[in-house]
Amino acid sequence: MIKIVVDAMGGDNSPIVNVKGAVRALNEISDLSVVLVGDEQQLQALLQAEKYDANRLSLLHAPDVISCNERPAEAIKTKTDSSMTKSFELLRNDPEARGMVSIGSTGALLAGTIVMRIGRIRGVKRPALCPILPTVVPNKIVAICDSGANVDCDPQYLQQFAVMGSLYLNKSFGIQNPRVALLNVGVEEEKGDALRKETYQLLSNTPSINFVGNMESRDLLCGDIDLVVCDGFAGNVLLKSTEGACMELMRLLKRSMMSSFKSKIGALLIKKKMYEVKDLMDYNNYGGAVLLGAAKTIVKGHGSSNETAVYNCIKQAYTMEANNLIEAITNEVQ
Amino acid sequence: MIKIVVDAMGGDNSPIVNVKGAVRALNEISDLSVVLVGDEQQLQALLQAEKYDANRLSLLHAPDVISCNERPAEAIKTKTDSSMTKSFELLRNDPEARGMVSIGSTGALLAGTIVMRIGRIRGVKRPALCPILPTVVPNKIVAICDSGANVDCDPQYLQQFAVMGSLYLNKSFGIQNPRVALLNVGVEEEKGDALRKETYQLLSNTPSINFVGNMESRDLLCGDIDLVVCDGFAGNVLLKSTEGACMELMRLLKRSMMSSFKSKIGALLIKKKMYEVKDLMDYNNYGGAVLLGAAKTIVKGHGSSNETAVYNCIKQAYTMEANNLIEAITNEVQ
Repeated sequence: MIKIVVDAMGGDNSPIVNVKGAVRALNEISDLSVVLVGDEQQLQALLQAEKYDANRLSLLHAPDVISCNERPAEAIKTKTDSSMTKSFELLRNDPEARGMVSIGSTGALLAGTIVMRIGRIRGVKRPALCPILPTVVPNKIVAICDSGANVDCDPQYLQQFAVMGSLYLNKSFGIQNPRVALLNVGVEEEKGDALRKETYQLLSNTPSINFVGNMESRDLLCGDIDLVVCDGFAGNVLLKSTEGACMELMRLLKRSMMSSFKSKIGALLIKKKMYEVKDLMDYNNYGGAVLLGAAKTIVKGHGSSNETAVYNCIKQAYTMEANNLIEAITNEVQ
Repeated sequence: MIKIVVDAMGGDNSPIVNVKGAVRALNEISDLSVVLVGDEQQLQALLQAEKYDANRLSLLHAPDVISCNERPAEAIKTKTDSSMTKSFELLRNDPEARGMVSIGSTGALLAGTIVMRIGRIRGVKRPALCPILPTVVPNKIVAICDSGANVDCDPQYLQQFAVMGSLYLNKSFGIQNPRVALLNVGVEEEKGDALRKETYQLLSNTPSINFVGNMESRDLLCGDIDLVVCDGFAGNVLLKSTEGACMELMRLLKRSMMSSFKSKIGALLIKKKMYEVKDLMDYNNYGGAVLLGAAKTIVKGHGSSNETAVYNCIKQAYTMEANNLIEAITNEVQ
């Protein structure tokens, strides 16, 4: 049995999406157990409408919530009754708790791993956030590591991001020899600042990864690359600009199509295809960002996650544990 | 009369787009003169099909071209007969030459300003590339400074980027009090690395700009911000990921719509609207990136520029000169 702690609050649509996502995961995975952490009364009320194996679901009361506008470390320390702090406590103190899922504040989650002493895998210099994005090639994903946990990086950190990310893609998604690229301002070897130049040499001399060289951010979604290695600042810019551009462009297209009678009819006829594309580009279908290098499995879902996204995050945490990712990283970085 | 030197080679569709773009600019702007630099025979052949005021167009023979795959500084130095090196020579040596336009290699253009001793405006620490992008709000643009000239930056550089970019938007596009934002991993004041924190304080204390705080990359196209200030590495990631995401998404939509009979009919009906959106998001309509802080006006167009893009780049260089942007920057940074 693999026990996953689910912070049931803190997302835009919490706790209903957390409850429904957890129930769906329980009904699909027979050796999964879930602890929902949040306002007990609210959670119980929502659970009454659901069918699930009650032996594998428990509740932990946490009346308080940490919002995205609070100072992360301070919030974790002072809001001891918050769902996130309580989730961390359980993850740290219950030896059976193998992983944690949250769709709350990213800053609080990162601060929480330190404040609540979750710790790092021995040998790991810095844990890194690694989200998964769809690409334009069907069934191909791309991971970014780091997408924002470390705004200041050494080449050695980036080397470890490459190693951990490769193991993650292999263990959790079955990708053989993931193609690793270094995010840079051009593809030539000599491009970039001192960090990029030194990292390029390090990655070239890391036999356990499949390093394919530098990449430009415009190629993120093309499907040729499995893992983008970068510092957390650049990774954050990359992730959010891609999300932002896709969202704004879809909005623009929709608005434009609604502006004439003829195109409205056209829009009706392509509606299904538009939804297919939207679905393909929807992060909700791909799970959350994992905190690679932390001593426990931690998955961070998007703040606006729906039920499917929470379900995918739980499945992701379960898969990481079922495939012993932490052990694999431990063996590799030592 | 304002004389602009046009490197007629080096783009994907050169020299025809350069010739046609230059002729269009000449026919529209009566006090503009142009020197086309490139293979004289080719240029003359192309010009035979055009109508223009021959008194305001001259040719400078340059049989060689610098490609994007060459090492920039080396290419500028050794290919003394290349259109770009010859253009720089003319810009430096002809006192009447006020600006230069190129759609060739960005690296060579940046290296050329140094190798060919174009120089900086007195007081400017580092010239920066400043491209213009459309936003989803009609008639609203957004500028990024720096988009790749300086991968390593000090806070003082970024402060100057903010000042120069603001003057540029005001002088060339008539934007009053351009809204300046610092690219960061979150909007809160304390976000980011040491560079961002120090730059935030500097920008807050720069009375000549309208600093509105930190921004996340997802908000680039929303139309709320006029100028994004960032180091060249982050700016390059931002620019190229936005371009890449828009391009890949459009391609995906197109492919998806062509996959069924019903959606093909739909696609026909929305074709015009799709083109309108494509047109709105097309950099060809917005001119190139300017090298702010250089002692002479330099405009870099996209490598895949069409005739309209070249025309817009020339118009841009002309407008910068007509509005004395360099003088304005000189007065402000001293």
